[in-house]
Amino acid sequence: MIVTVNIFLKQGVLDPQGKTIQNALHSLNFNTVKDVKVAKQIKIDLDETDKEKAKILVQNMCEEILVNTVIEDYEILI
Amino acid sequence: MIVTVNIFLKQGVLDPQGKTIQNALHSLNFNTVKDVKVAKQIKIDLDETDKEKAKILVQNMCEEILVNTVIEDYEILI
Repeated sequence: MIVTVNIFLKQGVLDPQGKTIQNALHSLNFNTVKDVKVAKQIKIDLDETDKEKAKILVQNMCEEILVNTVIEDYEILI
Repeated sequence: MIVTVNIFLKQGVLDPQGKTIQNALHSLNFNTVKDVKVAKQIKIDLDETDKEKAKILVQNMCEEILVNTVIEDYEILI
């Protein structure tokens, strides 16, 4: 089973990557761009068939190592 | 309108980030992890209301600057 985790900066945390991309897009005359936010997407292939178990497992992975919970939030999609 | 772009490595291209995360998860005894793939997710807030126009615009952004089309593929979600 493949579980997708989207990891993104919390509201209010500066996103230098997003700002850099936004400036680059403006310099290429994509002027309708109002804001850009960058997130990381991790797809984990698990040897697990039970969705609930898989979700709890991935949640533990996020809390233990994948996510910096001080500045990042995450969502788990199964 | 917010348009989401997922940018991921093409099939067959080595994913060192994914491998590193996979090894780290195994070292924490998450042994049911078979494979890990890392992708980038960009959320672009556009001053545009027409979905078709927005899609074409973002496609141009991807082809011009956001995606390295030699090693990466992308999907646009509106």
